[in-house]
Amino acid sequence: MNNKFNNFEGENLDNFLGHEMISITAEHVESKLEVNNNHKQPMGLVHGGIYSTLAETICSYGANYGGEGTFVGVNNNTDFLSSVEDGVIHCSAIPIKKGRSFQLWECKIHQGKKLVAISKVRLSRIK
Amino acid sequence: MNNKFNNFEGENLDNFLGHEMISITAEHVESKLEVNNNHKQPMGLVHGGIYSTLAETICSYGANYGGEGTFVGVNNNTDFLSSVEDGVIHCSAIPIKKGRSFQLWECKIHQGKKLVAISKVRLSRIK
Amino acid sequence: MNNKFNNFEGENLDNFLGHEMISITAEHVESKLEVNNNHKQPMGLVHGGIYSTLAETICSYGANYGGEGTFVGVNNNTDFLSSVEDGVIHCSAIPIKKGRSFQLWECKIHQGKKLVAISKVRLSRIK
Amino acid sequence: MNNKFNNFEGENLDNFLGHEMISITAEHVESKLEVNNNHKQPMGLVHGGIYSTLAETICSYGANYGGEGTFVGVNNNTDFLSSVEDGVIHCSAIPIKKGRSFQLWECKIHQGKKLVAISKVRLSRIK
Repeated sequence: MNNKFNNFEGENLDNFLGHEMISITAEHVESKLEVNNNHKQPMGLVHGGIYSTLAETICSYGANYGGEGTFVGVNNNTDFLSSVEDGVIHCSAIPIKKGRSFQLWECKIHQGKKLVAISKVRLSRIK
Repeated sequence: MNNKFNNFEGENLDNFLGHEMISITAEHVESKLEVNNNHKQPMGLVHGGIYSTLAETICSYGANYGGEGTFVGVNNNTDFLSSVEDGVIHCSAIPIKKGRSFQLWECKIHQGKKLVAISKVRLSRIK
Repeated sequence: MNNKFNNFEGENLDNFLGHEMISITAEHVESKLEVNNNHKQPMGLVHGGIYSTLAETICSYGANYGGEGTFVGVNNNTDFLSSVEDGVIHCSAIPIKKGRSFQLWECKIHQGKKLVAISKVRLSRIK
Repeated sequence: MNNKFNNFEGENLDNFLGHEMISITAEHVESKLEVNNNHKQPMGLVHGGIYSTLAETICSYGANYGGEGTFVGVNNNTDFLSSVEDGVIHCSAIPIKKGRSFQLWECKIHQGKKLVAISKVRLSRIK
């Protein structure tokens, strides 16, 4: 990862959750998560915040990969479409628009062929 | 907490993150989080997914407190307004509308007097 | 159009604005609008509410085309990506998920090749 | 209205729809609309795009009232909570946050005491 991030491999939320990057470019990011009990809400389903978090991360990594400027998320809008109890979920993000001062990304999260969540993440350039 | 949740005190995302409930009613929920490195993204700021997660949790707890039916989040729309590096953040949620088949809640997250994030969480009744 | 709508060709917002349907199916809807001054905000640009409106309409038409049940929009989340002053804009909508009790649709609005707005519209079944 | 708008009283969407301003300040905007058939979708209810439009307008007027800079809407997220068939609806907007480079506003739309829609409108400074 490029040097906009000073703590990519140390203590951070993604490492704490076990969120694994598969590939990162400026046009496409992929990742996965193997679900465990620490990802769940009290009913035993994967917590909606997990999907928001995975989306926020990979859209942010894509937005900051190469190019000029540093971008931070300003809005995360996630729809939860199906519930997940166990297994692996896969995340895939692409840019909807890469502007000079902002970027808008979309992240889809699947379990197998089932779409379980979809996010739009808006990022603003801070420097 | 009422018995719609079978694992309120065991392994789950909120307990994993250290998200502490302060009070839960059908009309108002309050909670707090003491920030640590596991809540951060690689730039050293609290990860946006944390705010989405805190909001999702407390809106869901309020929506399911008492009353009929079980409600699950279907959309989480969170705006990130200020960054946080350390300390304690406080969350407060109230219902915007409590319908028979859906509820819409709002969560505000503060550090001291500074509003750091605001969420709308839509929940649908599943049974 | 099917008979869920009792006033498709009479007085309604789309006819008032000049919003023209091109094709409607359960999987894809297309439409267009020829911009005039009545679509603008006071700075002379197409008003953001126009994009929200076009998206709301065509996602709703697609969601209600054939199939069981009547669906009404419950949330419209529109990002404005570029400004438009004149000319024709084209709208295209596809379903992200068609559930039994809800549908989530996406609408993209272009002027030529330029993406000017993107919407997610959530619809709930009311009967 | 201040001079950021060059066509506040001429041909524009709000005048076309009959959207009447009641009061505009940098901290609170109020307006109303008397519903007619041109505001409706084909089922005979007020079109969701009307609520998005009213919200977009008054949040934008408030964001641009006095102060430095010109702000344009970049996202409009509107929840539709109750349906309206006739009569007058009232709109009220307040800022959630007024930053140097962006503002986030909230608009609530009522018919009598009934909350019929709620919006968050994000605006970015363009100059």
